[in-house]
Amino acid sequence: MTSLEELIRLLKKLPGMGEKSATRLAYHLIKTDSAFNKALGDAISTLKEKIHPCPICGCYSEGDSCPYCSDAKRDHSILCVVEEAEDVVSIASSGVYNGLFHVLGGAINPMNGIGPDALRLKELRTRIQEGSFKEVIIATNPTEEGDTTALYIRQLLSSFPSLSLSRLASGIPIGGDLGYVDKMTLARSMRGRIKL
Amino acid sequence: MTSLEELIRLLKKLPGMGEKSATRLAYHLIKTDSAFNKALGDAISTLKEKIHPCPICGCYSEGDSCPYCSDAKRDHSILCVVEEAEDVVSIASSGVYNGLFHVLGGAINPMNGIGPDALRLKELRTRIQEGSFKEVIIATNPTEEGDTTALYIRQLLSSFPSLSLSRLASGIPIGGDLGYVDKMTLARSMRGRIKL
Repeated sequence: MTSLEELIRLLKKLPGMGEKSATRLAYHLIKTDSAFNKALGDAISTLKEKIHPCPICGCYSEGDSCPYCSDAKRDHSILCVVEEAEDVVSIASSGVYNGLFHVLGGAINPMNGIGPDALRLKELRTRIQEGSFKEVIIATNPTEEGDTTALYIRQLLSSFPSLSLSRLASGIPIGGDLGYVDKMTLARSMRGRIKL
Repeated sequence: MTSLEELIRLLKKLPGMGEKSATRLAYHLIKTDSAFNKALGDAISTLKEKIHPCPICGCYSEGDSCPYCSDAKRDHSILCVVEEAEDVVSIASSGVYNGLFHVLGGAINPMNGIGPDALRLKELRTRIQEGSFKEVIIATNPTEEGDTTALYIRQLLSSFPSLSLSRLASGIPIGGDLGYVDKMTLARSMRGRIKL
């Protein structure tokens, strides 16, 4: 196998990359600058050595603690619980949330053998117990698994009566079209309707 | 900039890769096996050191000459002229051609400042002059630039009267639908119609 074929074989393993796109990308890389290829190659090779989960919140970080946990300007009394580390970036960049995060590492999914113990739920309880949180926002996905996980968290944290628990609203996305919205979303947005 | 942000910045420079797909890919790479990332990273970093144009035909090769030029089983009396090195792979893998190749490195495009001198046309003439080719198949793209280049090659090789010159047929693709074919293609396939 030539190095080009080997590169195409590896590229094809990436998500959303078929034979054609992998080949096109490989040929593109032959034509680009060597320095760019070197930089991209090194960034990919060394990524996992540099990045590891934050021991406190579980989001991706490079130092001892992540940019969120160590940021004194963030509100340390609110905690947002998400499924995946990438959700942290989405919520942080939306600009409407300034509290801390807790990454579960997935959602409860008995069909796939993911029980509560496989997630960072024990760590969540410990954080609530030892911290001084006033509010927990559950931002799991609006899916069956995310709903189950949200219910589980409500149960888990029921022994902290002073804690305010909420869940992200789900409904028709901004700029969405009623005609294209699925029934489940429509039902949810109807149930969660807001008084004007 | 963190290594993750740096990786996303580099990935975004690849063709067809926007902010969202670059981010998704970067997060995917965090989750995959370190060994895979190492292999992919190295394949990208070292690609250009290993691959260089074949001095004879101009296609990508790793050794001294490419797998086509050095293959004694191929018909050394037919030459297929293509625009880009990747076209060689497409034609070779179609299985209907068993001759040699010549990569031009593009097509004549005066609007973009690409004249005949920017392409490997002199090398083509020399190969024909010094070789023992009986037939030349011009496989430039069916575009204005490809047509211009094909005409230029016809002119260039007009001093070899014994040489048979042809051009790839262009028309409706197999499995295509007349209703979806553009007018230019339809006109070409009409002009190039084949007697039954």
